[in-house]
Amino acid sequence: MAETSERKELEDLQEDLHAVQELLSRHRLVEGLVRRQSMRNQDLVEQLVQRQHLAELRRKLDGMHPADIAYILEALPLEERLVVWDLVKADRDGEILLEVSDAVRESLIESMDSHELLAATEHLDADEIADLAPDLPEEVLQGVINALPVEEQAALRTAMASKEGTVGAIMDFEEITVREDVTLEVVTRYLRRYEELPDHTDQIFVVDRTRHLRGVLPISKLVVTDLEELVGDAMITEFVTLYPDDKAQDAAKAFERYDLVTAAVVGRDGRLLGRVTIDAVVDFIREHSEAQHLAKAGLRESEDVFASVWDSVKNRWAWLALNLITAFIASRVIDAFEGSIAKLVALAALMPIVAGIGGNAGNQTITMIVRALALGQVDEDQVKKLFLKEAGVAVVNGLLWGGVIGAVAYFLYGSWPLGIVMTAAMTLNLLLAAALGVGIPVLMMRLGRDPALGSSVMITAFTDSGGFLIFLGLATIFLV
Amino acid sequence: MAETSERKELEDLQEDLHAVQELLSRHRLVEGLVRRQSMRNQDLVEQLVQRQHLAELRRKLDGMHPADIAYILEALPLEERLVVWDLVKADRDGEILLEVSDAVRESLIESMDSHELLAATEHLDADEIADLAPDLPEEVLQGVINALPVEEQAALRTAMASKEGTVGAIMDFEEITVREDVTLEVVTRYLRRYEELPDHTDQIFVVDRTRHLRGVLPISKLVVTDLEELVGDAMITEFVTLYPDDKAQDAAKAFERYDLVTAAVVGRDGRLLGRVTIDAVVDFIREHSEAQHLAKAGLRESEDVFASVWDSVKNRWAWLALNLITAFIASRVIDAFEGSIAKLVALAALMPIVAGIGGNAGNQTITMIVRALALGQVDEDQVKKLFLKEAGVAVVNGLLWGGVIGAVAYFLYGSWPLGIVMTAAMTLNLLLAAALGVGIPVLMMRLGRDPALGSSVMITAFTDSGGFLIFLGLATIFLV
Repeated sequence: MAETSERKELEDLQEDLHAVQELLSRHRLVEGLVRRQSMRNQDLVEQLVQRQHLAELRRKLDGMHPADIAYILEALPLEERLVVWDLVKADRDGEILLEVSDAVRESLIESMDSHELLAATEHLDADEIADLAPDLPEEVLQGVINALPVEEQAALRTAMASKEGTVGAIMDFEEITVREDVTLEVVTRYLRRYEELPDHTDQIFVVDRTRHLRGVLPISKLVVTDLEELVGDAMITEFVTLYPDDKAQDAAKAFERYDLVTAAVVGRDGRLLGRVTIDAVVDFIREHSEAQHLAKAGLRESEDVFASVWDSVKNRWAWLALNLITAFIASRVIDAFEGSIAKLVALAALMPIVAGIGGNAGNQTITMIVRALALGQVDEDQVKKLFLKEAGVAVVNGLLWGGVIGAVAYFLYGSWPLGIVMTAAMTLNLLLAAALGVGIPVLMMRLGRDPALGSSVMITAFTDSGGFLIFLGLATIFLV
Repeated sequence: MAETSERKELEDLQEDLHAVQELLSRHRLVEGLVRRQSMRNQDLVEQLVQRQHLAELRRKLDGMHPADIAYILEALPLEERLVVWDLVKADRDGEILLEVSDAVRESLIESMDSHELLAATEHLDADEIADLAPDLPEEVLQGVINALPVEEQAALRTAMASKEGTVGAIMDFEEITVREDVTLEVVTRYLRRYEELPDHTDQIFVVDRTRHLRGVLPISKLVVTDLEELVGDAMITEFVTLYPDDKAQDAAKAFERYDLVTAAVVGRDGRLLGRVTIDAVVDFIREHSEAQHLAKAGLRESEDVFASVWDSVKNRWAWLALNLITAFIASRVIDAFEGSIAKLVALAALMPIVAGIGGNAGNQTITMIVRALALGQVDEDQVKKLFLKEAGVAVVNGLLWGGVIGAVAYFLYGSWPLGIVMTAAMTLNLLLAAALGVGIPVLMMRLGRDPALGSSVMITAFTDSGGFLIFLGLATIFLV
């Protein structure tokens, strides 16, 4: 029935959040009363009332999915977050730590002692422990590793040795394997021994005795095929495999392109190491796109909304410093034309228009080129073609918008040479923006760097200083 | 074996792309020869050679996955794109049209007549036809609809009536249903009648005779449970359901949060309408994040890299016009202080620094707030708290970076009042940026608009004009 189904869309979650907040505020109220009235020896009653609220809260939390508890922890200021965290059953701590953002995870781990951390991680799989590892204190991590069975220790080492952003960092080790010389009947009996298949088991892997991957057997095929058939005959031999050092981004593209739910991860020798599941891929896609989004605005990492002022300053300073430097250079360009501006002050009012539009147009070009480069759709031959197209767009826009603003300048200042200089400067700066909008990402690509990072700051720096230089330069030659 | 597996990562795809490009260029070469030598009556031989290249190309294309052909079509200039498109087997046209971007799809559909379009779409499911519908000519669409079985026509109408960005627009109708009063044995026999289960069938849906959804039966549970058991006993009754008018974005969050592969879509009356699969969700996530990314740079839609200059101008003009207007307003603010600038030209050189840093800091704040709002983690009570925090960051940054640049101004122009005005103006503009960085997204949210769209242009407009006003205003009062 739809009524009993777990409909935890955003709205429901927000309701939960409000309920938690209300319970917390009642808790706080009582805490205040208790403090004030402790002289009057009514401690016991008040404490009971307080405990009742916390008990209600705990009941509420016990019924919630770890991902939902993580959501609520993210939305609470530090003090209340730790109250809620204390109420969560210890055996669910690990799962919740996996779901929260890095910044919030730090705040939670800081509040736990080694003993609690060990208890929280003991229910986790090797790949999950690897995800938490960077945030765990050294001695806790050692304890966790020592407590693992030997084969899981090997898996954990593989996962921990993987660089962030590779397939190795998002793979897990819960694959089911069978041999090709058994019947599907045997496979179904083998599977029936599991109480539950690992999450996202849409296929099982067919390996030989040295774990070389021979094929895959989709569960959906197992379900429809005659059980007398041999695995070797039913299995599929054309399938996607990944290497642990493949980029996670390329793996995500393969999942998206071929609509995969899981994919095998094999070593260079063809031996099966583990698998990647779609939920890890979706998490990766979201985190990756969010990181790019944050990087665009110069935020080093996702901030805890309730982080201290000082943490925020640290997260944001590098970007501001970089922009300050480029703004300072632009300022020096203007300063070089001090004499011209003194003679014709209108230049000071008009120059930001030239610089600004160049930056906007450049960012449009760069966004398009970076996308084409990321998809691998642009090669050397086409760079010239793209540049010619962008130059065409720049000339059209320059004459169009430059013409408009030139006419406005003539209207405002009554000087048609000023209007013409304005139009010419805008067209030239748009051409500069087009050239750099194609050139910067292509150059960064050739230098082996990610063209998505920093291209935007660079082009804005050039179109600002360049715009001032072109406009004030033309004005100095023709007007002053 | 890893050698036989289909490893179509980006690199391999690029190799394919190069192979296609080479075959095409040989084809062009021959075409040129043919044209030049046609007088000499060698047509026949040359045409054979040419046909051979195209035959080779066709063979190559026949062996490729539709998503890979789509990739190659995207990467080719229009003329070559159409040559390749002609070589693709007609019965795969529909699948490929589903994979290419909107802009490229338009170019391909334009090249096809009604007959070809009808043939291309006849192999598609209702939900897939609905995806293509907006790009199909009216009479073709009517023909397609008439050719469908009655129940598919109903499904198509449901899908086409759904607004973009809702669950209805990404759902499909390939769910398998069973009754709860049969044994798992019966279910397995029923499934065995399928030649192949629909893609991503990780669960089948348990309904009553009026299609009210009673529960779900995960295939992985079916595989491990005793076959004597009744569906009603084995099924799960706590599961995620979606409504067709739920936002696709919320559905994506549910998939991400609860690691789903499929989810049931039910009407408000609890009847099963269809399902959403993870591959549709992943496509939606990618398209949505790309659309936001493009919108940030003022691109209306993803451009075909080889679009004409004119198409690009149309795609980009609105954003440039908007920025031109805000730049013009800032220019008028500067013009109002003409007298002050004439007396102290240094102001013209320093003012862009104040404006620029304000814009950068404002965008940092807005990025963080928009994210917190999108996650539903910020409520009314917390707006004040957030504003105080951002104001704190602004004061720290203002005194820090404003102090640095004030000192530099003193050093360059030898005037300590100028340095102090600079520091004060930067601090005030950063405070303005903090207030607007919190205020604009919160206000847009209350007005029911998406705070991610347009916030960035607005804050830059305010911090530009505001920065000039504050700096030149303070300078006029204290310096001139």
